[in-house]
Amino acid sequence: MGKRELGLPSRAPSPEPGELPERVTIWEVGPRDGLQNEDEVVPSAVKLEFVHRLADAGLPVVETTSFVHPKWVPQLADATEVLDGLDRRAGTRYPVLVPNARGLDRAVDSGVTDIAIFASATESFARRNLNRGLDEQFEMFEPVVGRAVSEGMGVRGYVSMVFGDPWEGPVAIDQVVSVGRRLLDMGCSRLSLGDTIGVATPGLVEAVLRAFVAAGVSVDRLAVHFHDTYGQALSNTCAALRLGVTTVDASAGGLGGCPYAGSATGNLATEDLVWMLEGMGIEHGVDLEALVETSAWMARQLGRPSPSGVVRALAR
Amino acid sequence: MGKRELGLPSRAPSPEPGELPERVTIWEVGPRDGLQNEDEVVPSAVKLEFVHRLADAGLPVVETTSFVHPKWVPQLADATEVLDGLDRRAGTRYPVLVPNARGLDRAVDSGVTDIAIFASATESFARRNLNRGLDEQFEMFEPVVGRAVSEGMGVRGYVSMVFGDPWEGPVAIDQVVSVGRRLLDMGCSRLSLGDTIGVATPGLVEAVLRAFVAAGVSVDRLAVHFHDTYGQALSNTCAALRLGVTTVDASAGGLGGCPYAGSATGNLATEDLVWMLEGMGIEHGVDLEALVETSAWMARQLGRPSPSGVVRALAR
Repeated sequence: MGKRELGLPSRAPSPEPGELPERVTIWEVGPRDGLQNEDEVVPSAVKLEFVHRLADAGLPVVETTSFVHPKWVPQLADATEVLDGLDRRAGTRYPVLVPNARGLDRAVDSGVTDIAIFASATESFARRNLNRGLDEQFEMFEPVVGRAVSEGMGVRGYVSMVFGDPWEGPVAIDQVVSVGRRLLDMGCSRLSLGDTIGVATPGLVEAVLRAFVAAGVSVDRLAVHFHDTYGQALSNTCAALRLGVTTVDASAGGLGGCPYAGSATGNLATEDLVWMLEGMGIEHGVDLEALVETSAWMARQLGRPSPSGVVRALAR
Repeated sequence: MGKRELGLPSRAPSPEPGELPERVTIWEVGPRDGLQNEDEVVPSAVKLEFVHRLADAGLPVVETTSFVHPKWVPQLADATEVLDGLDRRAGTRYPVLVPNARGLDRAVDSGVTDIAIFASATESFARRNLNRGLDEQFEMFEPVVGRAVSEGMGVRGYVSMVFGDPWEGPVAIDQVVSVGRRLLDMGCSRLSLGDTIGVATPGLVEAVLRAFVAAGVSVDRLAVHFHDTYGQALSNTCAALRLGVTTVDASAGGLGGCPYAGSATGNLATEDLVWMLEGMGIEHGVDLEALVETSAWMARQLGRPSPSGVVRALAR
């Protein structure tokens, strides 16, 4: 971990981990969810170096890019170039967001083995983001998921606006569970429950997770995805860990804002998550020093300081 | 709460508060711990407006200033002027940090009814901050606490470097409990356990709190004081709430850095704490809109944006 070199004060290990998981898989979303929400369009070579450095730092999953139409996400218009240039590391997964059949064709052509689809828990966001209703979104996903599964791909189903929606306010938990179940029934192997606008607090996180478990969904099929817009991301993550969640989404350096939240802060910073896991004695496999150096380098590319507390405290 | 006016998405209340406290007392430290660590020396009139606005926003305790010698804390050299100008609101407490007998004299002269003393959990920080050893610090505090108690004052004992020390690394929990017990035995009514450099994680927080309880200290005599240097403050606070802590220190707008931590981030932002408490259905008595406006105003006085996620997201 190279803590001494970073000037980290060493800390006592967590003496009573209790019911916490022994190991957490960090699903790194910086190159995709982070960069797609940055104003800056980053050159493909920089993206590739970012992905390679993240994998080298030990991140087991690096969500690499997206085949959403460049009209909607110009920041990731170079998805094919990035995937063509990828030097895949054994043991690392490089999932790609795929919105439709055409995107899946491109993903297959690029040698992608893991995809993600992006669903909405609310009618309002489905209409605005997908241009169709809450129920109609499944018609769009079904052929994509079906074919991906038949190709032997892993398919992650993102559920967005799980904990609140900027147009609708609170979201009924039953509705969230129903959307998630339909994605699993369709063939998604796992779900990522997203607080897209960052409003959740720990009690609601627990309630949503318990509702999924009560509906027969095993907690090991659930990941959590928090945004730090209101400073709540790590606290919510900790609540999820206490309920047995073992996959946590995070973005190196806290890259990425949410265009619907009117704030400069983005995803939970991977470094802040690693700091907490390390302190709690939960295995994560990430070299924090290499990760901090990567995020500090990326912040220089973007020309602004990282919002991650850990990066600001440790980067030189 | 004026949430609609702030454009807050309303959220479902926490459905299962479980063992969480029903009510939390926020001990606002912005005017003291926040401003003493800012580079900028704020004019007395601005400090007074800050304290008055915080009390008007419903904060039950506003730690107002410090009688530490101006040579060490020039930012608060105007303690007497600020206290003389204070328009005390009924039901609000305005504690003041007092380092020694001379400071207590000045506090008494200024009509102060609640004081705080600032102790160290480690030898290294006692030597650097107080210029005496871990054991010798008590000789300094004893006459101050004794006289304050005989004057009918409430006396809070801060214990600093509880969860890590920049020179010593991990701090033995037994030593922390021993320092805390000596302060209580001396006459302190409550303790505030401080993560002065912001390195703590939830497992260690729980271990320290449990050790105090095992040593016969009731949890209602313990407050927690977290810094957000590594992004951990709110997560640690949540861990403390789960163990029954009901007094939480926070700083409006996240004011204040730690000169020993090499980072720009300071105390837990009061707004981020209020957002979490509100979402979890825990009473706090604070008007979030008034608080955000106060912090946004203070950020303008200091000429830099607030580090609080909630303030950045909601301030206009």
